[in-house]
Amino acid sequence: MTGADDWYRLSPRTIERERDVAKTARKNAVESDPKRPAGAPRPIAGAAPVEADAAARDDTEIIALDLPPEPPTPAIEAYFAKCEEKLGFVPNVLKAYGFAMPKLEAFAAMYNDLMLAPSGLSKLEREMVAVAVSSHNRCYYCLVAHGAAVRQLSGDPVLGELMAMNYRAARLSKRHRAMLDFAVKLTAEPWAVEEDDRARLREAGFSDRDIWDISAVAAFFNMSNRVASATDMRPNKIYHSQAR
Amino acid sequence: MTGADDWYRLSPRTIERERDVAKTARKNAVESDPKRPAGAPRPIAGAAPVEADAAARDDTEIIALDLPPEPPTPAIEAYFAKCEEKLGFVPNVLKAYGFAMPKLEAFAAMYNDLMLAPSGLSKLEREMVAVAVSSHNRCYYCLVAHGAAVRQLSGDPVLGELMAMNYRAARLSKRHRAMLDFAVKLTAEPWAVEEDDRARLREAGFSDRDIWDISAVAAFFNMSNRVASATDMRPNKIYHSQAR
Amino acid sequence: MTGADDWYRLSPRTIERERDVAKTARKNAVESDPKRPAGAPRPIAGAAPVEADAAARDDTEIIALDLPPEPPTPAIEAYFAKCEEKLGFVPNVLKAYGFAMPKLEAFAAMYNDLMLAPSGLSKLEREMVAVAVSSHNRCYYCLVAHGAAVRQLSGDPVLGELMAMNYRAARLSKRHRAMLDFAVKLTAEPWAVEEDDRARLREAGFSDRDIWDISAVAAFFNMSNRVASATDMRPNKIYHSQAR
Amino acid sequence: MTGADDWYRLSPRTIERERDVAKTARKNAVESDPKRPAGAPRPIAGAAPVEADAAARDDTEIIALDLPPEPPTPAIEAYFAKCEEKLGFVPNVLKAYGFAMPKLEAFAAMYNDLMLAPSGLSKLEREMVAVAVSSHNRCYYCLVAHGAAVRQLSGDPVLGELMAMNYRAARLSKRHRAMLDFAVKLTAEPWAVEEDDRARLREAGFSDRDIWDISAVAAFFNMSNRVASATDMRPNKIYHSQAR
Amino acid sequence: MTGADDWYRLSPRTIERERDVAKTARKNAVESDPKRPAGAPRPIAGAAPVEADAAARDDTEIIALDLPPEPPTPAIEAYFAKCEEKLGFVPNVLKAYGFAMPKLEAFAAMYNDLMLAPSGLSKLEREMVAVAVSSHNRCYYCLVAHGAAVRQLSGDPVLGELMAMNYRAARLSKRHRAMLDFAVKLTAEPWAVEEDDRARLREAGFSDRDIWDISAVAAFFNMSNRVASATDMRPNKIYHSQAR
Amino acid sequence: MTGADDWYRLSPRTIERERDVAKTARKNAVESDPKRPAGAPRPIAGAAPVEADAAARDDTEIIALDLPPEPPTPAIEAYFAKCEEKLGFVPNVLKAYGFAMPKLEAFAAMYNDLMLAPSGLSKLEREMVAVAVSSHNRCYYCLVAHGAAVRQLSGDPVLGELMAMNYRAARLSKRHRAMLDFAVKLTAEPWAVEEDDRARLREAGFSDRDIWDISAVAAFFNMSNRVASATDMRPNKIYHSQAR
Repeated sequence: MTGADDWYRLSPRTIERERDVAKTARKNAVESDPKRPAGAPRPIAGAAPVEADAAARDDTEIIALDLPPEPPTPAIEAYFAKCEEKLGFVPNVLKAYGFAMPKLEAFAAMYNDLMLAPSGLSKLEREMVAVAVSSHNRCYYCLVAHGAAVRQLSGDPVLGELMAMNYRAARLSKRHRAMLDFAVKLTAEPWAVEEDDRARLREAGFSDRDIWDISAVAAFFNMSNRVASATDMRPNKIYHSQAR
Repeated sequence: MTGADDWYRLSPRTIERERDVAKTARKNAVESDPKRPAGAPRPIAGAAPVEADAAARDDTEIIALDLPPEPPTPAIEAYFAKCEEKLGFVPNVLKAYGFAMPKLEAFAAMYNDLMLAPSGLSKLEREMVAVAVSSHNRCYYCLVAHGAAVRQLSGDPVLGELMAMNYRAARLSKRHRAMLDFAVKLTAEPWAVEEDDRARLREAGFSDRDIWDISAVAAFFNMSNRVASATDMRPNKIYHSQAR
Repeated sequence: MTGADDWYRLSPRTIERERDVAKTARKNAVESDPKRPAGAPRPIAGAAPVEADAAARDDTEIIALDLPPEPPTPAIEAYFAKCEEKLGFVPNVLKAYGFAMPKLEAFAAMYNDLMLAPSGLSKLEREMVAVAVSSHNRCYYCLVAHGAAVRQLSGDPVLGELMAMNYRAARLSKRHRAMLDFAVKLTAEPWAVEEDDRARLREAGFSDRDIWDISAVAAFFNMSNRVASATDMRPNKIYHSQAR
Repeated sequence: MTGADDWYRLSPRTIERERDVAKTARKNAVESDPKRPAGAPRPIAGAAPVEADAAARDDTEIIALDLPPEPPTPAIEAYFAKCEEKLGFVPNVLKAYGFAMPKLEAFAAMYNDLMLAPSGLSKLEREMVAVAVSSHNRCYYCLVAHGAAVRQLSGDPVLGELMAMNYRAARLSKRHRAMLDFAVKLTAEPWAVEEDDRARLREAGFSDRDIWDISAVAAFFNMSNRVASATDMRPNKIYHSQAR
Repeated sequence: MTGADDWYRLSPRTIERERDVAKTARKNAVESDPKRPAGAPRPIAGAAPVEADAAARDDTEIIALDLPPEPPTPAIEAYFAKCEEKLGFVPNVLKAYGFAMPKLEAFAAMYNDLMLAPSGLSKLEREMVAVAVSSHNRCYYCLVAHGAAVRQLSGDPVLGELMAMNYRAARLSKRHRAMLDFAVKLTAEPWAVEEDDRARLREAGFSDRDIWDISAVAAFFNMSNRVASATDMRPNKIYHSQAR
Repeated sequence: MTGADDWYRLSPRTIERERDVAKTARKNAVESDPKRPAGAPRPIAGAAPVEADAAARDDTEIIALDLPPEPPTPAIEAYFAKCEEKLGFVPNVLKAYGFAMPKLEAFAAMYNDLMLAPSGLSKLEREMVAVAVSSHNRCYYCLVAHGAAVRQLSGDPVLGELMAMNYRAARLSKRHRAMLDFAVKLTAEPWAVEEDDRARLREAGFSDRDIWDISAVAAFFNMSNRVASATDMRPNKIYHSQAR
């Protein structure tokens, strides 16, 4: 539980950065905000009036429940500071859990272990699972936040769209197709997942530990998708323009 | 069948432009191409290898069927020229139909009448229906192409994402919610649409003619989604970066 | 766009008849009307009262929307005359579109190209696709109208019933089973249609052009089924007794 | 268990006929056979070859299981004679059960009690439930056999089609709509039927005994549909032309 | 139709007992009642109040319909006496049908033939089909009553749980897996059961007669599940503690 | 994060017992083991052979993945000791996570906070949500383990069965029905959960914090169900006989 690569563990220790992620993220954050006002398309004159800005309140009214925040614990304070430093903002999902520190700590510990700790799956692969699962569940929050992550980690904006829209339309390696087929079947009809399904992952080169990780990430987003949908959680506006 | 606003009718007549759409489209087309090489996020070192560019072949291998193009009729030649002039490119769906001029003409005639001709529904509303239906059907082509249209016509990039991901998460007027509920029910379980459903549209202020138009647009995309899925139709790459 | 076999194109040109279809149709039309009053089964005395005649208003109240007809264009006038001549009546779907000539022209152009123009699929095969798709979507209008077409084109009344009730119960050639499996999968879960599905059609002897045609017909009826359900479209009464 | 109206009970007693049903049935049987060879539509020259007659073997290969018939018991012999006398033929479902007399007796006893014994539901209403349930389950045998019964009992050929295709498209009394909504919900998602559903039937005027009868008929056809589908049971050809 | 093993036929004949079933049943019945008051877990102090006893009224208010019982026929009187003697109680489903002797007789005749008469399937196998089907249909009555039967006939309490919860999680022989896959597919999508499905049963060693029996039992519980759900039928309380 | 009631937090601190839960659990554990060999039903002679004991390997082969355990951290060692002391055994799910201490710690922290920490929902209510969700997902592990918890916490064995089989069949207070309807809708179609659904919970007396807790518990079991199904996780045998 120690070491330079463990920043995502909830503790006030000094931690190294995952430099590339952070740089890309900050760059997008910085660039996109000033650029959007200038570059944003203007409504066509005469178009039927819709809400002036669909995401207007997304960074202030994060969930549809009235749950006043608790004072952050020191570990969470340090974690939020890291988020600001590395991402340029605190993801709304963390703010949503901010009404109860033990819940936020438990969520962040599990999330960080699953998505950032060493694994036979690359971070991009875990994000691909996250988005394909969230697409099945049509979860607005997770599609926006993790769609941005796929774009960022892959450097390929279209891959993010494919995961969010229909992973079957993507031209994937056998490995990635097997991974996503398993994750989405586990999402759609968990009762029908059996040895044959695990065998297909092994044939595609995945170890038993990899199978756990695919399962655990897919399962985690089945949880997160439902917390987000149940509470009408809104993604940070900045995600939309990241890594396009 | 005449008049300056009828450019979308298949004929070699002189036609006026819908200026704002065209301008925005060209601007995006021009800006986005040179900007992307510079601004595109770079893959994180060490990320698991995915296909270098998910959309690499999307503008050359448009469908998965081998159907050599027919020589265009004069009407289609003029139509393609209009597309180039107004959009900066010919949508891949039109190229896909290019193996049989009567099919292309019939498709274009119906599409243009539905989406561009005068109607009680604004063009943006028709595109919202198109994207919400395509989201239910998880149609990659239509989500990309018409998601861009919603972003462009609304000037609100997030609205396009909401239509593509889950229209129920959007904060919509009563009118728009009723419109999309009808369109998506008609998509998901057409056998269950009845007088009550039409009554709900009337209560939301829609005329009988509007009900036809909502139905016809929703129905049309239930067709287009299936032609696209059956043939693995790929959207023009340029759509991805438009109006973000 | 010319030639004796092109009567279904919307134009005032002189056109040849598809004699056999027409003869059968007229014969049925003529025979069935006078016969029905005489031969129709009488309600059992004492049976619980149902609406005296389920189709009583079907030829007068064609859809549940109030959309006054436009004066027909010359092309449509000629087309309706052809319908009367060849079928003995104008199909209600055409009357339903009669409130807007451009819509009717676009619909008829697409329909006629798909269902009547030369294709690797016989007309009967296209009608079988139409009915199997309409059965999945439980579309009353299309099951009645195109069920009659299958009966007529095949000369086999039971084949029409099988397509309308459950195509899987029919004893079909490998070719026809593959064709209908594809069409119904495309109807039920278009997002899951992939290269494997196209490969199965090729194995059954279909060309790439045939695959397009199967897809396009299936897709078209996914549109038509929804227009019909959305508007409560009623089939011409005469269909029910045709080719029994 | 006695009385002139009890012919459908399995016993060698003398029994009265249900005259109207029998007359209509015999009339149809007689009329339709000679007429069909003459009046049947002929295949269009050049149509793609389908099986020459979709129902060719339907009256000889009744199920897809090889189960040699047992010698009939006297009660069954009498019952079959009644069928011949009243209907003009023995329904194939009875022949299918003929490999085991106790199974056939049990089936016939339950069927006859449900469909023919006195009830708050008319015989037509019970047949409407049968067909609407069979339509949900897409059961070829039951749709054909009981579709004919609806046409016959109602004297309205279109009502039979509506029940088989989509009962929601029929113009029904409140009573009949409530009855069919209950039956089809019980078919589609029995786990979700609750007091509210029963209350809706009571509001439509049904007694508790009627609710039992609707439930029992709907449930019975959920059984029969599955026996028929599991064994590929084929309906007697004669049904197709009855009461059209 | 004669012989010592035929007690389940509805007749006043002397019949032999199936000794082991009866002994186990009575033993459980006797043991469990006095034991439960003593051994039953007590609610935790402070737990949120739920209905004091979920099954409190289950043996008095058997269904949600008000249908006063008819006087039993002699055959039924004898049958009920047998139930008391062999099981220690009369199953509530029989009491539920008690408002109409012909219905009860027909139900009991079919049930007994299917579940108790000689068959290539053991009684346990038939009960496994019953429970797996009832699990798909989430039928409370049948899961409780037939879950107890699986526990009893197998002597394995866990097998009953597995059938009721998810048969796919049980470690089954190829024979039993094929049997349950067929039964559950027939339950979930009867329209899709075809020759391939029957072939899979034959490969697993089932005869054509066995296929009928699997189908008939699965079909019967699709009926019973729906009668039970439609009427809110409650299982005898005693089942819950049997053979645990 | 301190206090006598916090035993479930992962720390080596001295903690108070939840006496009643523990006592009941131990009592059941002790009683049931010796009792079962004596009281367990014996297989009927001649019954078709099934696996001698469906749960034979459930306590040794906990999941279908080969993941050797890590040495426990001190916190986990203490936690396991607590489990032994309070429950009489370590739940298999915890052993399953034992290959990676950070994953186990994160899981246990989240689980304990959700299910045991103070909340507007009683522990029984949270277990009811857990079982109703697991029933929808047909998760063998969670139905067994948490079904036992409902039996234990309620002192009502039948309530556990109802939650596992079909919560709609239980006679619930308005509060509990609303709670479970929300949890199961969130499970089945999270994309459709909206303000109306939250409003229904508020009408049933739940606070915004309660809504979070219902959502979080339902979401958590959507995760756990999928980890269990993906890995074929087997419940401790002892659960089956607890609190019957």
